[in-house]
Amino acid sequence: MNLAIRRGFLWPSFEIYGGQSGFYDLGPLGVLLKNNIVELWREVFVKQHQEFVVEIETPIINPAIVFKASGHEEHFTDYAVECTSCHRIFRADHLIEEVLGTNAEGLSEEELNKIIKEHNVRCPVCGGELSTVKKFLLLFQTYIGPYSLENLAYLRPETAQGMFINFKRVYELMKRRLPLGIAQIGKVVRNEISPRQGPIRLREFTIMEIEFFYDEKNPQCELLDERCSDNKIYILTAEQRIQGETKPISILPSEAYKEKIILSPWLAYWMCIAGKFVNMLGIPLEKTYFEEKLPTERAHYSKQTFDQMVLVDKWGKLEVSGHAYRYSYDLERHIVFSKSDLYAVRQLKEPLIVRKRVAKYDKVAILKLFGKQAGDVFKKLAKYSPEELLKILESSQRDEIEIEGMKIPRTVFTVEDVEEKIWVEKFIPHVAEPSFGAERLMYITLEYAYRELEGGRVVLSLPKKLAPIKVGIATLIDKPQFEALASRIYNMLKMKYYVVILEGDSIGKKYAYADEVGIPFVITIDYDSVVEGSTVTVRDRDTRKQIRVPIADLAKVIDLGLEGKDITEFGYPVIEPKD
Amino acid sequence: MNLAIRRGFLWPSFEIYGGQSGFYDLGPLGVLLKNNIVELWREVFVKQHQEFVVEIETPIINPAIVFKASGHEEHFTDYAVECTSCHRIFRADHLIEEVLGTNAEGLSEEELNKIIKEHNVRCPVCGGELSTVKKFLLLFQTYIGPYSLENLAYLRPETAQGMFINFKRVYELMKRRLPLGIAQIGKVVRNEISPRQGPIRLREFTIMEIEFFYDEKNPQCELLDERCSDNKIYILTAEQRIQGETKPISILPSEAYKEKIILSPWLAYWMCIAGKFVNMLGIPLEKTYFEEKLPTERAHYSKQTFDQMVLVDKWGKLEVSGHAYRYSYDLERHIVFSKSDLYAVRQLKEPLIVRKRVAKYDKVAILKLFGKQAGDVFKKLAKYSPEELLKILESSQRDEIEIEGMKIPRTVFTVEDVEEKIWVEKFIPHVAEPSFGAERLMYITLEYAYRELEGGRVVLSLPKKLAPIKVGIATLIDKPQFEALASRIYNMLKMKYYVVILEGDSIGKKYAYADEVGIPFVITIDYDSVVEGSTVTVRDRDTRKQIRVPIADLAKVIDLGLEGKDITEFGYPVIEPKD
Repeated sequence: MNLAIRRGFLWPSFEIYGGQSGFYDLGPLGVLLKNNIVELWREVFVKQHQEFVVEIETPIINPAIVFKASGHEEHFTDYAVECTSCHRIFRADHLIEEVLGTNAEGLSEEELNKIIKEHNVRCPVCGGELSTVKKFLLLFQTYIGPYSLENLAYLRPETAQGMFINFKRVYELMKRRLPLGIAQIGKVVRNEISPRQGPIRLREFTIMEIEFFYDEKNPQCELLDERCSDNKIYILTAEQRIQGETKPISILPSEAYKEKIILSPWLAYWMCIAGKFVNMLGIPLEKTYFEEKLPTERAHYSKQTFDQMVLVDKWGKLEVSGHAYRYSYDLERHIVFSKSDLYAVRQLKEPLIVRKRVAKYDKVAILKLFGKQAGDVFKKLAKYSPEELLKILESSQRDEIEIEGMKIPRTVFTVEDVEEKIWVEKFIPHVAEPSFGAERLMYITLEYAYRELEGGRVVLSLPKKLAPIKVGIATLIDKPQFEALASRIYNMLKMKYYVVILEGDSIGKKYAYADEVGIPFVITIDYDSVVEGSTVTVRDRDTRKQIRVPIADLAKVIDLGLEGKDITEFGYPVIEPKD
Repeated sequence: MNLAIRRGFLWPSFEIYGGQSGFYDLGPLGVLLKNNIVELWREVFVKQHQEFVVEIETPIINPAIVFKASGHEEHFTDYAVECTSCHRIFRADHLIEEVLGTNAEGLSEEELNKIIKEHNVRCPVCGGELSTVKKFLLLFQTYIGPYSLENLAYLRPETAQGMFINFKRVYELMKRRLPLGIAQIGKVVRNEISPRQGPIRLREFTIMEIEFFYDEKNPQCELLDERCSDNKIYILTAEQRIQGETKPISILPSEAYKEKIILSPWLAYWMCIAGKFVNMLGIPLEKTYFEEKLPTERAHYSKQTFDQMVLVDKWGKLEVSGHAYRYSYDLERHIVFSKSDLYAVRQLKEPLIVRKRVAKYDKVAILKLFGKQAGDVFKKLAKYSPEELLKILESSQRDEIEIEGMKIPRTVFTVEDVEEKIWVEKFIPHVAEPSFGAERLMYITLEYAYRELEGGRVVLSLPKKLAPIKVGIATLIDKPQFEALASRIYNMLKMKYYVVILEGDSIGKKYAYADEVGIPFVITIDYDSVVEGSTVTVRDRDTRKQIRVPIADLAKVIDLGLEGKDITEFGYPVIEPKD
């Protein structure tokens, strides 16, 4: 973290105004690294699934109705306690965990109050007495237009609702095909109570998520077998956790689904892809596992949730993605609140035969009874379906039925049983949601890349594709001829990569800086370069081996190197590292 | 716009809840197009200037102090009127312009009230009487943590303040070199009063801006001559506008600076780049000009502002970027409000000689007077600089000077004139700011790409690099053999590009759909493809010419084509369009 702040990856926001917990800025290197991680996610989750996953972008500010419908206004809360003396505010469950060392997540108001009273938990800062716990809404609130209740709006805590309320539009655009994934990458905000974990518990961060809609009767999840039978994933089930076990089981995602450890096949699929993705960030498979949430820990919308945990030094483990089986909860709620049709349509192979009782009427009898007025009667009756007519008949015991002020004898109606063949069926798709936090991914990427070598040398072995700056240029000595060539190569490469001309008292210091910020390749301009003017060396950050390359071949060598190929195998002369 | 909505580029947000003006969603094609425009901006403005322009990312939610300091809390307002009958709210100047047809931008509260009264302007919806105008703060407001005045926060209306409050950190990271550009791309929100211009006046949108810091005594703006002497830009000056002229002048950016039409050399430089950039979106140079804002129209922080206007069908002209000379305003304000050092340092070539009067004291005299106590006296005196001692001397007429309770005779002090050589100088850099709205750029890109051909055929001639989907795959007839080959090519290309397998009753309809959504290249699988199994045709959207290409060469052909090269010149057999 020190290195990350010193080198400009990130730092606490609003420093000149004394800071504001839960907010971090990304510096120049941080933006490049984060963008590279976001792009890799987009490639793996969207582009490689572009047949059925599309990306949309929806607003951060939402009218309150959206989060009323989603249940967040009611459920997206934490319990807070206030110190009655210094008026500091704490998240009740975190405070209890901090003071007593027991997990208090998901406890009720009464339970929290009881623990605080019984154990006499006091303010950890001033020792003051604590208030009773209060429910605190974690949604940031604002008003669209002038201040007034009807203009109340919330800032989104997840991008998901943007996909749910737009499901029908995108479903139509995608020609009503399921499965359908709607992805979104964007900022979300959560009004956390006193966040105190630096860049890990942020009030504002970037989320990357997919709401994946599928027909639960026909999931069409062949990919689960096709693409996920090479790697097992590690899962710590809720059952294991209740029994106090801490060692995750290792299982194929498809087996986990078959054995009902994972309840949705698409949840299993995206967990498999999540495992591969986190591995691409440089995290070994055995350092990450999926922890199933207990029912008390799950969000209100979820039938089953797995958090993808990565082992880290400072916090032991860190949640980098969440995998929730949101089944049909959100669409159902929006159907109720908006009265819109958010259904999908299922073509049936066999028609559904539906039997029902209906009321029909005898046209001839009506003609005879009403004469010239019969036309009016038919017009009025036509407004009602046979089922509705039956209801009207059944709702009265009289001999004459009254319909829109017109009295019609019950005798003209007959009640019949009919059969109907139905070829399509409306249904609410189920949803599997993989959801990633970009800043946390950045954090684990930095942590796993950080290596201290003998002699205190630091190397940031970022996956080459993710490195913020791809190429460093170093002159062996700082003389005009060397610098002119450095500048020529810089101008040649900067259109393609982020490049830096390294500065420092010696070539060793230049390499040390490049290693520290994770630059994969350093081009060195030495005496031979200046004399011939046509070759330079390229040094690989991780092996420290160098090759001598014609300047004209540089872009090609770097491109292949960034793809992960070993540059010493391209046939150029290899220079072994001296130290 | 109809096409854009129908094909899923964008649509109004929150439709299922009746909509919310000022918010738009981007659909699948819209996200791809916007991301391509954002990436092009990043390439042109950041990557190609990476020696001195770096990108950072800062929060959307800011403690109120930031926008107090920036002056937004006081100045970022519009005047609103409310209908006393239906309670609709209108922006006063827009309403006057709509009803009376006169420009009312920048008028004072009194002036607006006077016009409304004199012309009896009434509610355009219900005809009701209007209230007097009220100042309306355009910042969205929220609270970080619980509701309380000290937790007041604003959502940023520009990213700029993130760069200003971080200036010192980035300046240090960049080794205290100027000029220095700090760029940011991100969401901003403005609580516009009743926005009614569809996707043009948004309450939430993506901004791309650079705060460009330079030493106004040594701007080092050689690039203005080096890179901007090939293209003139069009400027409509404030003076011209006051005189009622509407025809912009055409001038080289460097000349515009020399002739003091543009007051900052770097503002001129970035306006030159802005012209080139908008041209890359497919807008001819003569369809865009820079309109200088009148003093009443300028934001509070600006010494001079130019809006880059693009001629459009619906609104006549549309502002797509703003170029403000913010000079030292923002840093000065943050220095005052935060008491932080946000200065840059200028190395002087010649030392500054500063003469000043100071007070010195005679050590021997003090030793004689105070004996053993002299040590104490020296310790106390050492806390004060010679200038401070002079002030103390001058503040009293007595013979004995009192310093920290100790009385010292005036006689031990002498007042002298001294000279000091100063080699560095602190100063506040000046700032030129180019600022672009991504959604408006998307709008003009779509408008200028839209072409209706004979027979009502629509082609979206997007610059190939910006097209959302790069490749369409069409089978001449929909038979299994054709479809299998289409699927093989799809899987081959989807790792690299966004690709779509075209659907439709005929090959003509497939091409028509591809043209409508701007797909640059369509690969057609015809009888020859199936028989030989090794060649297909590639059709260019704009020329409608096709070439016959081996499948193995497809990626190469498409890559070169996307770079803008004419695919018919690669030596493959060319098939002229039939219609």
